[in-house]
Amino acid sequence: MPNPTAAMLVIGDEILSGRTRDINMHVLAQALNAHGIDLKEARVVSDDRDAIVSAVTALSDAYDHVFTSGGIGPTHDDITADCVAAAFDTHIDVRDDARDLLLRHYESRGVEVTEGRLRMARIPDGATLIENPVSVAPGFTLGNVHVMAGVPTIFEAMVASVLPAIKGGAPLLSQSLRIDKPEGELADPLRELAADFPDLSIGSYPFQQNGAFGSNIVIRGENGADIDAAMLRLSELFRGAGA
Amino acid sequence: MPNPTAAMLVIGDEILSGRTRDINMHVLAQALNAHGIDLKEARVVSDDRDAIVSAVTALSDAYDHVFTSGGIGPTHDDITADCVAAAFDTHIDVRDDARDLLLRHYESRGVEVTEGRLRMARIPDGATLIENPVSVAPGFTLGNVHVMAGVPTIFEAMVASVLPAIKGGAPLLSQSLRIDKPEGELADPLRELAADFPDLSIGSYPFQQNGAFGSNIVIRGENGADIDAAMLRLSELFRGAGA
Repeated sequence: MPNPTAAMLVIGDEILSGRTRDINMHVLAQALNAHGIDLKEARVVSDDRDAIVSAVTALSDAYDHVFTSGGIGPTHDDITADCVAAAFDTHIDVRDDARDLLLRHYESRGVEVTEGRLRMARIPDGATLIENPVSVAPGFTLGNVHVMAGVPTIFEAMVASVLPAIKGGAPLLSQSLRIDKPEGELADPLRELAADFPDLSIGSYPFQQNGAFGSNIVIRGENGADIDAAMLRLSELFRGAGA
Repeated sequence: MPNPTAAMLVIGDEILSGRTRDINMHVLAQALNAHGIDLKEARVVSDDRDAIVSAVTALSDAYDHVFTSGGIGPTHDDITADCVAAAFDTHIDVRDDARDLLLRHYESRGVEVTEGRLRMARIPDGATLIENPVSVAPGFTLGNVHVMAGVPTIFEAMVASVLPAIKGGAPLLSQSLRIDKPEGELADPLRELAADFPDLSIGSYPFQQNGAFGSNIVIRGENGADIDAAMLRLSELFRGAGA
């Protein structure tokens, strides 16, 4: 059975304006890969209602799971929860379970419960809460969409909260070999290798280091013996140029 | 007149598998912002023909410009040029001008011209070449799609090659203020500030540092005097908590 598929949706003007460099995509990609879920696509959109609703709808239709990052804080530009509710045509308001979590947390610390903070208890009907061990305000899962915070420490903690509840597949196996030759000299033999191992995915990821070109060859697949055989052929082809 | 809009398409299994962390999106976002082009959306797709063709088509229809990164090297998994040609229903083959560039470069350095290397001269009919000052193999512009390499040093150089030929608008002005209070205490006053300055975009970007929460407030707009007035109000609101 093929692995479940997933998409990520990063919500935030700050990424698209170049103010902030996103890290959550990389964190999610690694976590999903280890859990046997194939991340097929990622999108970044701005804090714009139409853009968020249409991306959530498109990705939710196309993939088994959608993971979102950003836009669930207390401020006026945090509109993700309302947009996800709209995409599923579901009612949303401050929900008792989420409000109780927040009130308990704030009261125990003597923190004022502002209108903004209460917005973080806006949860669509029928959604399941995602635990936030960092700052309590929860994420949620509605349908196949998992809504999480954008602050990297909180995002990572929420991913760890939600993944065990999602059925994964077999983690993709991979081996890689660094070859200190320009990609142009690898292309023809790699094409033949790929043709001889049609069940494996053979990727070439060029780099430039100290003025010299090289490439990391990554062989991925589900059958470890096939990968071993292809790696052996690869290292024979480029004996002396590998690391 | 509003600024031109743009989208980015990152092509590469290595980003989605978590093997590599993308940097090109951040580089492009900063360059476009400085050039007065609004980056509205970014997508990452795998080295899959259908995924690339449909993303190029959708983004090219929706935005003034599309910038792609990755998949134009010499190996079998480099299929971006062919996919962009397919999206525009345009013929593609090794083109004389691009081949001459490559041959001159390789012959001057005594480098063998492999079949793989010649693939990098596959350019769609009607496309304009994008100069690659790092390793010669060119990118290209077809319609409103600018096709560039994924290796970060080459991508950045190609962005510098292509941007001067694209008409930009007014760079968005912005000022920011770091406030060492949790976002929950900023939300209500910020909502009022945003209501008082409807032509400005006021974003709150929370962070966590040494266990304490704070937020960077960024005010963006085209009118510098409005931004000054809003920043003054903001600093008065949070006197003592700012940096």
